Amino acid sequence: MEDKTMIKQTVLFKNKPRIISSYSIAGPKEGAGLFSHYFDLILKTDSFHEKSYEKAERKMMEHAIFNAISRASLNPSDIDMLLSGDLLNQIISSSFSARRFDTTYVGLFGACSTMAESLALGASLINAKYFNYVACATSSHFSTAERQFRSPLELGSQRPPTSQWTVTGSACSIISSKGVGPCITMATFGKVTDYDISDVNNMGAAMAPAAMSTLCAHFNDTNTTPLDYDLIITGDLGKLGSEILIDLMQYKGYKLGQNYIDCGQAIFDKTQKTFQGGSGCGCSAIMLNGYFLEQLKRGEYKKILFMATGALLSPTSSFQGDSIPGIAHALVIENDDLP
Amino acid sequence: MEDKTMIKQTVLFKNKPRIISSYSIAGPKEGAGLFSHYFDLILKTDSFHEKSYEKAERKMMEHAIFNAISRASLNPSDIDMLLSGDLLNQIISSSFSARRFDTTYVGLFGACSTMAESLALGASLINAKYFNYVACATSSHFSTAERQFRSPLELGSQRPPTSQWTVTGSACSIISSKGVGPCITMATFGKVTDYDISDVNNMGAAMAPAAMSTLCAHFNDTNTTPLDYDLIITGDLGKLGSEILIDLMQYKGYKLGQNYIDCGQAIFDKTQKTFQGGSGCGCSAIMLNGYFLEQLKRGEYKKILFMATGALLSPTSSFQGDSIPGIAHALVIENDDLP
Repeated sequence: MEDKTMIKQTVLFKNKPRIISSYSIAGPKEGAGLFSHYFDLILKTDSFHEKSYEKAERKMMEHAIFNAISRASLNPSDIDMLLSGDLLNQIISSSFSARRFDTTYVGLFGACSTMAESLALGASLINAKYFNYVACATSSHFSTAERQFRSPLELGSQRPPTSQWTVTGSACSIISSKGVGPCITMATFGKVTDYDISDVNNMGAAMAPAAMSTLCAHFNDTNTTPLDYDLIITGDLGKLGSEILIDLMQYKGYKLGQNYIDCGQAIFDKTQKTFQGGSGCGCSAIMLNGYFLEQLKRGEYKKILFMATGALLSPTSSFQGDSIPGIAHALVIENDDLP
Repeated sequence: MEDKTMIKQTVLFKNKPRIISSYSIAGPKEGAGLFSHYFDLILKTDSFHEKSYEKAERKMMEHAIFNAISRASLNPSDIDMLLSGDLLNQIISSSFSARRFDTTYVGLFGACSTMAESLALGASLINAKYFNYVACATSSHFSTAERQFRSPLELGSQRPPTSQWTVTGSACSIISSKGVGPCITMATFGKVTDYDISDVNNMGAAMAPAAMSTLCAHFNDTNTTPLDYDLIITGDLGKLGSEILIDLMQYKGYKLGQNYIDCGQAIFDKTQKTFQGGSGCGCSAIMLNGYFLEQLKRGEYKKILFMATGALLSPTSSFQGDSIPGIAHALVIENDDLP
């Protein structure tokens, strides 16, 4: 592996792209969950004093980007590129946020896999020495996602037991090869995987096969097993989706044990009635930038595998009878200061 | 410039990423335009024998990708990554197309700038030697875009004189540093630019400032002028938008003259009643992959500057009173076999 830059789906970063700064914002419900102490800002109202939820989501992302940059002791003009995406049609949260920053912009769409997609591409560009600093960001908002993907909240539609709760939150990471912070050592890019699930209220089942595909590719490409990581993190499979992933991996000969956690399953308290847990781009984004990176820095973990998963449907594709394709991108993030 | 990899917004590619193959599909109206001889496939009906226009658009992209791969004498499994995006909510044309190919996938959203965005990122990844072959694709369809962004066609809404006609078409380029073909020598990534235009029927005016921003950045970064290129190509500013760009550039001290062309303005015949011309991701994509790359290969041009422009609005952002941010990414593409 020493002198290669890629092995099949996995790109190896020799030039040590680091997450030198990160910032996370959570909505009120997320801030009342189990990880409330780790988010940098918890909103008091999910409208964030804006006239629409869409504008609130955008404001969250602007805040996350601005504060991640400040925390790195940089100015917005120091950032060479912003890579971001979100769930809204034409990713307006990202594009309108990008308008506030005097930096080049690459818009992404990977549904809830966006945090991993942006970090994987951002690390690729930093590792290639094209840029000094890139910002990687994403967001989601319960109230914008519900009315876009499902029904207006005013309808009070009943939520089925397989459903998840879209996280209101946004986060941003600044990557550079100058500075201090956890190092992104590899990225495994995912393939679109579709096991013919068409239930739009069961995202976990739709995304679990993509998670399996990328995990297996990663272990194969890098000649590792689940035991080589202190923690394996999936984005928003939720409780049911995580169980499906554990089953699928077992079928492939890998045991996901105590060192496996799903952000969607973990983020809410059981009393919060979210059924299978959290979902949305913001879910894994605020858990990574709020909690896991902090644990890496503190030395609680030395090496984690972070994989965000996305369901690549639209209401139109579902109305036209299509199943739900999934994708997952994975990153190895290490605290290389630890022995 | 010799040993740098970047100058501000511009990335320099030393390892000669080449467009080794390309394929373009045009709808019936586009196939009746001025460039009909250059498109690889002209559809007889814009439904492409599918039950919905969305499925037709997807089928076009699948065909474009598959045929671009075949034309490079490759198998789909040789492609390391597909980078694609389109105009539809959650870029379903791209994601569902990606499902057909056993390759990693990065979903992009840059509205009509997507062909340039995908090529700029694809060339960056190939130049960094992460991958051997990447496919860059996009699509648009008049009938999917009209009903998503404006009104159902059945309403027969009157089109205002500043409007453009979304091109039905899809194209794919295969990039590699192995093989023969026009070389991508630089990419200038654009910044989101918003001059407070809010007329959703005047995309040219909304995007022209972004085009100006990226063009000026490119000329500054590379110490070139418009005269250094045999041809400067913009994506889909249309007739009015191009005139605005020419004015804006003049204001900035640059003269865009006989060597400037806009794909949107050029693609349709004046008798085709498209008002300001063509638009959509497919517009610049089929013009580049169908016509301009062929002219480069034939030696008609040695060095072109290809810049696709995107309007980053959604119906929701417009309904909520927002203006229209624009973006433009530019590529220098050269026939380096010519003296």
